[in-house]
Amino acid sequence: MSGERLIYLPLGGAGEIGMNAYIYGYGMPGKERLILVDLGVAFPDMDGSPGVDLIMPDISWLADKLDRLEAIFITHAHEDHIGALPHLWPALRKPVYARKFTATIGRLKFEEAGHPKDAITTVEARPHVVEAGPFKVQFVPVAHSIPESAALIIDTPAGRIIHSGDFKRDATPIVGEGWDDAAMEAIAAERPVKALMCDSTNVFSTHEGRSESTLKDPIAELVKSAGGMVVATTFASNVARLKTLAEAGRAAGRQVCLLGRAMKRMVAAAEETGVLVGFPRTLTPEEALEVPRRNLMLIVTGSQGERRAASAQLSRGKYLGIEMKEGDMFLFSSKTIPGNERGVLSIVNAFSEMGVDIVDDNGGLYHVSGHANRPDLEQVHRTFLPDMLLPMHGEHRHLREHVRIAHEAGIAAAVATNGMMMDITGDVPKVVERIEAGRTYLDGNVLIGALDGVVRNRIRMALNGLAMVTVILDEQDQPLGEAWVELMGLPETGKGGRALAETLETELTQFLDGASAKILSNDDKMDEALRKIVRQVSMEEIGKKPEVIVVVSRLATE
Amino acid sequence: MSGERLIYLPLGGAGEIGMNAYIYGYGMPGKERLILVDLGVAFPDMDGSPGVDLIMPDISWLADKLDRLEAIFITHAHEDHIGALPHLWPALRKPVYARKFTATIGRLKFEEAGHPKDAITTVEARPHVVEAGPFKVQFVPVAHSIPESAALIIDTPAGRIIHSGDFKRDATPIVGEGWDDAAMEAIAAERPVKALMCDSTNVFSTHEGRSESTLKDPIAELVKSAGGMVVATTFASNVARLKTLAEAGRAAGRQVCLLGRAMKRMVAAAEETGVLVGFPRTLTPEEALEVPRRNLMLIVTGSQGERRAASAQLSRGKYLGIEMKEGDMFLFSSKTIPGNERGVLSIVNAFSEMGVDIVDDNGGLYHVSGHANRPDLEQVHRTFLPDMLLPMHGEHRHLREHVRIAHEAGIAAAVATNGMMMDITGDVPKVVERIEAGRTYLDGNVLIGALDGVVRNRIRMALNGLAMVTVILDEQDQPLGEAWVELMGLPETGKGGRALAETLETELTQFLDGASAKILSNDDKMDEALRKIVRQVSMEEIGKKPEVIVVVSRLATE
Repeated sequence: MSGERLIYLPLGGAGEIGMNAYIYGYGMPGKERLILVDLGVAFPDMDGSPGVDLIMPDISWLADKLDRLEAIFITHAHEDHIGALPHLWPALRKPVYARKFTATIGRLKFEEAGHPKDAITTVEARPHVVEAGPFKVQFVPVAHSIPESAALIIDTPAGRIIHSGDFKRDATPIVGEGWDDAAMEAIAAERPVKALMCDSTNVFSTHEGRSESTLKDPIAELVKSAGGMVVATTFASNVARLKTLAEAGRAAGRQVCLLGRAMKRMVAAAEETGVLVGFPRTLTPEEALEVPRRNLMLIVTGSQGERRAASAQLSRGKYLGIEMKEGDMFLFSSKTIPGNERGVLSIVNAFSEMGVDIVDDNGGLYHVSGHANRPDLEQVHRTFLPDMLLPMHGEHRHLREHVRIAHEAGIAAAVATNGMMMDITGDVPKVVERIEAGRTYLDGNVLIGALDGVVRNRIRMALNGLAMVTVILDEQDQPLGEAWVELMGLPETGKGGRALAETLETELTQFLDGASAKILSNDDKMDEALRKIVRQVSMEEIGKKPEVIVVVSRLATE
Repeated sequence: MSGERLIYLPLGGAGEIGMNAYIYGYGMPGKERLILVDLGVAFPDMDGSPGVDLIMPDISWLADKLDRLEAIFITHAHEDHIGALPHLWPALRKPVYARKFTATIGRLKFEEAGHPKDAITTVEARPHVVEAGPFKVQFVPVAHSIPESAALIIDTPAGRIIHSGDFKRDATPIVGEGWDDAAMEAIAAERPVKALMCDSTNVFSTHEGRSESTLKDPIAELVKSAGGMVVATTFASNVARLKTLAEAGRAAGRQVCLLGRAMKRMVAAAEETGVLVGFPRTLTPEEALEVPRRNLMLIVTGSQGERRAASAQLSRGKYLGIEMKEGDMFLFSSKTIPGNERGVLSIVNAFSEMGVDIVDDNGGLYHVSGHANRPDLEQVHRTFLPDMLLPMHGEHRHLREHVRIAHEAGIAAAVATNGMMMDITGDVPKVVERIEAGRTYLDGNVLIGALDGVVRNRIRMALNGLAMVTVILDEQDQPLGEAWVELMGLPETGKGGRALAETLETELTQFLDGASAKILSNDDKMDEALRKIVRQVSMEEIGKKPEVIVVVSRLATE
């Protein structure tokens, strides 16, 4: 076995929250057999990725080594773990393994994308084993904020790895299996744990995590106290929460209606796979319209303020005939993810204008996180007692803090961010290579590289506006007529109320009239000179240098 | 006096946090004499106002009534209260009144803008009175997070108004006068308070506010505990905090260096006006380079993650020769304003990569707010016992909650947002008119209306990308050569790896070749037809409909 090595290479999710993708490899250096764990997305924003539909890991390193890739494992059905699979699977075309609920969601995605559904294999929980080259993989049920989340036991010739997936130590998660300390201890007792790759999301939360089941009573009481219609939002995939909310509605004599495609899909998949039973019967929006407000409860998508989701639609007025009114209650059974504050607050203020009472989770009563807090992470470290810990699923600050607490507990640990290939064969993790680990954007229906310049140009146009110059030259390179300027995203008038486009046209035409044949005959020189004039004159006129497109049309001698 | 009325009209700051501007009027309807209180800015963001430099209230209502405007009063020198003054004063040209520190900051701005400095008059605190038409105005010192913040007593023939400005009930604010309950009671005893216009920022904070002076010991201990260089950030204008930080540095045997123009300017203005005394001597950045790290403390701008401020610069590498290193400490003596989370976290993660220890205020030890919390607001309501309360300085949700607690205390109150003219002559506030209260953008050096379409086009280009079509027609309206397409912010290749620009050119040229004389001779029809083709073909090729600029050049018959 000498010379063979065990490697770990995050391509996404290590140094950010989102687009999880982790590679494990075993074999001779450069010839390791590989598996991929998770293939998720991150979400774009105006600041960094305007117009982009989804952000995904750049998997070109992997796509070059398809002959070495054995399989893909998906730990759970959150978009940041499975969302890139339908988009990137065509470049990989390897078998996908997941538990039943996750596989069901995956197959729905494959169906929409036109991929073969049988590429996804449903796997039973441990002790069932999937063999993939040198890897023996078992799915271990853990609690999280979606049904059937799994940690992976990855047994290799070099030792046992625990890949935690997203988890919390919740023994009573309402839907699906709870975290089972005894089962985890059995796993550690069965074979020593060489490496623990561990969720770091909540490493800064210093109190012990609370169970999903602690929300039942506060939510039930809250809904009972309401007079008008009750509308609650949470993550569509948090099926346990949907159940708690729906049952609170029923207990208060309310009929329940789900609004939002993602939510209905999640409940249907959870019922179909048997992980969700006893969910109250729901009304269609049309039926809901017939029910008195005080007997109605809506559970809706859009807890993060997403513009097209049901919450935002309701905050803008009627949605599917339903309208919020004074005296209604809107409950955020959720936490706002950093970066989404503006969108969420704009909904809150819109409801405020309607006279709707807003209840959020500032008091900590109506939402619990799906991730393990620091004391729980420490407990898990103690349970598995790994030789080394590699924190994942976190920004750099989370990973670094997780390493710090591992070191405090005497466990070897290192911050390994996207693109850092770690050799974990020995007792401590070592960096052996740095891979170009970028981002791929889904833009419309095209995949583009984050550094292709497309998005950079969009940002520039948004910040600087655009001026477009058209010049026509005749067969002798002489200007035919005047320069023409079109502006977009720029003020119409500059200093002294002069029209900016006209000022630019005058200056450009003057330049053309006096330009030498050497310049007029050279496209590059023309482009540079015209661009410079536009930027200088604009700076004087409006205090801003726009982006410039120059089109020089030369009439061909025919 | 019958027939005359007292009105209140917020043009900014009521229904948002930022760009404060409040009008009071007294006289016959439509002939009221007016004063303006504050003229501040709000800050742009990529989501709603890309490329914009500052957001200001639309004062066109006021600019139409200059003959009725008596004066402008500025309560304090925060940008959201004074920032628009240098930009909008030229449209008003009325005397400006402020206390000494605020006036000093105002004059610096006027000097830069080339306005006469003597337009700003320094006013002593109460009992000094400024007469402005029917208004008698006194400045009442209050505690806030900047020196010399003031509430205004506005005495009118119809009664006394208290305009709270931004305040907290802090008796020991380190710099400047503290809140004085006895003085406030005296004001209420002197003449009944008809209306209280009151800061609503912290109405959702249910605990009593803490004094600025409670930070001294925790910050001193923290700085003392540090081994490497200490860098602290806070708002540049929080002179009291700067003093606390600098003194903590000195007490720990550290030399202090201020980084950031705004911070140095604030300290200089505070020293010049005598509100700040005993601030430790500071080093220049060059001098700081000579001091051992363990003996150095930097106090820097950029607590909100602003890209160009010192904090962000240090997070990207060397700044003025100074570099953060492993073992240094970075303290956020500040709170992240909603919407700035991404920028702040990106700095935190960059420092984390450098091995810098980050201390934020999650524990509540190193920052206090400058605004009154709910229990303090309730106390202030009791002190002034106004006939009515009109909440200001808050989003709709803040104003509504503030009205709710006023009602609970038996005080008449109403939510009056930007543009709602309230008649407050009687016992309860009444809406009498709704003014078009929009936003004006400073863009480069041009003022544009928020609804002019300039920014909307920027956002569209950012989301959709841009395609620009050039077509040349000869004297007989026949195409000369082929259509030309330039793309910006769009993927180069579409389906099957075809170049998008070429595909578009082919389709457009085909259309031109078959187009009727009726279309070719009509600019509008041409524009519409070409635009439609670009959008349809792009949708097929890349799944996205770009913005389109069409330039049809017609060669003139000469």
